[in-house]
Amino acid sequence: MTQGKITVPLILVNFKCYLEATGAKAVQLASFARKATEKYGVTVAVAPQAADLRLVSQQTKVPVFAQHIDPISAGSHTGHVLAESVRDAGASGTLVNHSERRLEVSAIEEIISRAKGLGLATVVCANTSGISSAIASLGPDMIAVEPPELIGRGVAVSKAKPEVVTDTVGRIRNISREVVILCGAGITSGEDVKAALELGTQGVLVASGVVKAKDQAAAIEDLANACR
Amino acid sequence: MTQGKITVPLILVNFKCYLEATGAKAVQLASFARKATEKYGVTVAVAPQAADLRLVSQQTKVPVFAQHIDPISAGSHTGHVLAESVRDAGASGTLVNHSERRLEVSAIEEIISRAKGLGLATVVCANTSGISSAIASLGPDMIAVEPPELIGRGVAVSKAKPEVVTDTVGRIRNISREVVILCGAGITSGEDVKAALELGTQGVLVASGVVKAKDQAAAIEDLANACR
Amino acid sequence: MTQGKITVPLILVNFKCYLEATGAKAVQLASFARKATEKYGVTVAVAPQAADLRLVSQQTKVPVFAQHIDPISAGSHTGHVLAESVRDAGASGTLVNHSERRLEVSAIEEIISRAKGLGLATVVCANTSGISSAIASLGPDMIAVEPPELIGRGVAVSKAKPEVVTDTVGRIRNISREVVILCGAGITSGEDVKAALELGTQGVLVASGVVKAKDQAAAIEDLANACR
Amino acid sequence: MTQGKITVPLILVNFKCYLEATGAKAVQLASFARKATEKYGVTVAVAPQAADLRLVSQQTKVPVFAQHIDPISAGSHTGHVLAESVRDAGASGTLVNHSERRLEVSAIEEIISRAKGLGLATVVCANTSGISSAIASLGPDMIAVEPPELIGRGVAVSKAKPEVVTDTVGRIRNISREVVILCGAGITSGEDVKAALELGTQGVLVASGVVKAKDQAAAIEDLANACR
Repeated sequence: MTQGKITVPLILVNFKCYLEATGAKAVQLASFARKATEKYGVTVAVAPQAADLRLVSQQTKVPVFAQHIDPISAGSHTGHVLAESVRDAGASGTLVNHSERRLEVSAIEEIISRAKGLGLATVVCANTSGISSAIASLGPDMIAVEPPELIGRGVAVSKAKPEVVTDTVGRIRNISREVVILCGAGITSGEDVKAALELGTQGVLVASGVVKAKDQAAAIEDLANACR
Repeated sequence: MTQGKITVPLILVNFKCYLEATGAKAVQLASFARKATEKYGVTVAVAPQAADLRLVSQQTKVPVFAQHIDPISAGSHTGHVLAESVRDAGASGTLVNHSERRLEVSAIEEIISRAKGLGLATVVCANTSGISSAIASLGPDMIAVEPPELIGRGVAVSKAKPEVVTDTVGRIRNISREVVILCGAGITSGEDVKAALELGTQGVLVASGVVKAKDQAAAIEDLANACR
Repeated sequence: MTQGKITVPLILVNFKCYLEATGAKAVQLASFARKATEKYGVTVAVAPQAADLRLVSQQTKVPVFAQHIDPISAGSHTGHVLAESVRDAGASGTLVNHSERRLEVSAIEEIISRAKGLGLATVVCANTSGISSAIASLGPDMIAVEPPELIGRGVAVSKAKPEVVTDTVGRIRNISREVVILCGAGITSGEDVKAALELGTQGVLVASGVVKAKDQAAAIEDLANACR
Repeated sequence: MTQGKITVPLILVNFKCYLEATGAKAVQLASFARKATEKYGVTVAVAPQAADLRLVSQQTKVPVFAQHIDPISAGSHTGHVLAESVRDAGASGTLVNHSERRLEVSAIEEIISRAKGLGLATVVCANTSGISSAIASLGPDMIAVEPPELIGRGVAVSKAKPEVVTDTVGRIRNISREVVILCGAGITSGEDVKAALELGTQGVLVASGVVKAKDQAAAIEDLANACR
């Protein structure tokens, strides 16, 4: 199914700054993502570090997301990340406001606007139902919700009370029917992916559950298989 | 001449977030740098955006610097720049604390320490003589001094009073004999490079003077020729 | 009229870091605000610097707002502004996310939550209609809208096209019926206040128009008179 | 003894954002400081929150420090801390770059310069020997050194290896003979104060050891007594 320009369900793997997903290992992990897509017909996208964007997008056919872009236009911005640059390197979208890279609300709005102008899809992270509905008003393509009950507590979404996710989905849907909602916490297994989709999300944002897995390929396939 | 592991005089061209130095144009500009090195025997290095580091380092033989790295170790740092990643992408050094990307003093110290551990050369920017001598105490490989009288005022170092630069060089030398000193402002012509070297620096950090030049190749050659 | 616990229309004067509104001059300006309230029956509140909160609240009967509080609880937060401290000093509310003190969206949510728990009213600033409606989802007591067409351009709201304000008011009202809306830009005269109220706001946030006026008392009375 | 305008040895008590040192309790704690000064002849100064500066300086005769000021001049800086404002409120100095409020190196330099112009003494915090010597180049009145071996590990300076402090003191003295050095970590008892003074510092910066003590007055007197 395609919701707007994004095909859902979507599994987006955030490589963070893990050495297990840097350089040649980023390419390898992206190739596992590609194989899962071919095997199960579900979109698996990846978000490598900035310096690996071009390498991964050239050597695999996987949709590639930046982990962050700055709210700037081309010019004198040493050390920043320009939207045009990540697009030139092959990115088709970007994470925004990840919990490890929080932004001012005006920056989020400007990044969404710039990304839209360049055809980059935006996945804005939000860690409460209030913030999720606030973000929905800014018009991103996707929102990755990180219910505080699930973040960093080792609670799987499949084991949590349903309202932890459905409340947030409900508040977002009051603001926007179109925005794609990803479950951005509590995903470590295919069972969690199934639960997330049943609770009204259209996909998942995962990181260590895949990147730090002993068998990265098997971990991705487990998630992808659950989306069928 | 080689001062420590860095060959001086050094011309370092900062590509900032200029579209004239992004993607394929970053490679082209780096190739002009390479030609200037071959022609005049002076090291010309470049600092492209993060997403272009690997492209430039693979397609040219020019020493490549990152524009910024974060004071982090590998791990959960979405949207940050990991030293190991830029080194893997071919960088041999990094700018630190550029005026467009100022850092807390403890971050500067940690970045210098991390870079040293990975064999990355550090060029720390400093905008007054006081800050320049402060930075010297943190042990970087190079300091790019940006005398406030020269920054953003269109004053060329070759036209300024000598003490604008020599005072800063003197204060740095009271702290460190080894650190390489670059002149980081007031450079638009070969005449400026000559003046900077005569005032006790070992090279220059330039940006728009080269990147925004109508004839980028000619602009680089003019600077390189002045170092002979 | 009282909307929730806040009496509207409201004129809120932001003292910023102006010397014309520091220390004894802050008390004097607050006393002008008090006189305008007595004369015209409209609430005029003031937002002095943190170090002047107690002085102003003790020496005048004017409602006092902090200019900022941090999203922290009591403890080891050297150099930050604790909600309990400004309340103890007499504040009955606080500005949040002013354009000169932008905050991460999660910080805004936490500040609103903390302020509510302590009975402090929140005035969250927002500079576009998108951000205004986003902020409305976070449940503040008041939103000060700063239409970009009016900020820093010397355009008075009374001279601007009505939709510059009404669009934003409309988007906020889609999210919340209760939130008090202040016009936070384009106010320099009583005529502007009238226009702002007619366009659907319940008051104004002003700064230099009052603080920098040759006759501060007259400037405040002009605004208050327009609210009758 | 007076070193420059500052009388040493100095005990500086940082009130942080502790409720045990907010409002009326800030005044009480400052009065304990005053009594210790009268009893033992050693300067005990306090650093309350911004909103308590005037209250404490008016109701006690204790030297009062701000916990932070911003690198700004008077004007449009909503929510910031203006040097002129804290001086007007009775402060005779300010902490700078505390580990809970780190600053960019250029901000530290500007704050020192502004404070000097207004006659405010600066105590700049520094957490390694490298940073301590860097800060010394910026010309503050005092440096509070926080050896990483002592911070937050419950190690008392009196129990630590001497070189943890003497190395830092030595590096600072290579840069400046005049700067007053405070020991900013590892102080919980009079024995620690004695050790700190013997290792070449001229005083101490303390916080929880006094503020959180069951008997604040006794805790201060224990420290002051050790300075005689």
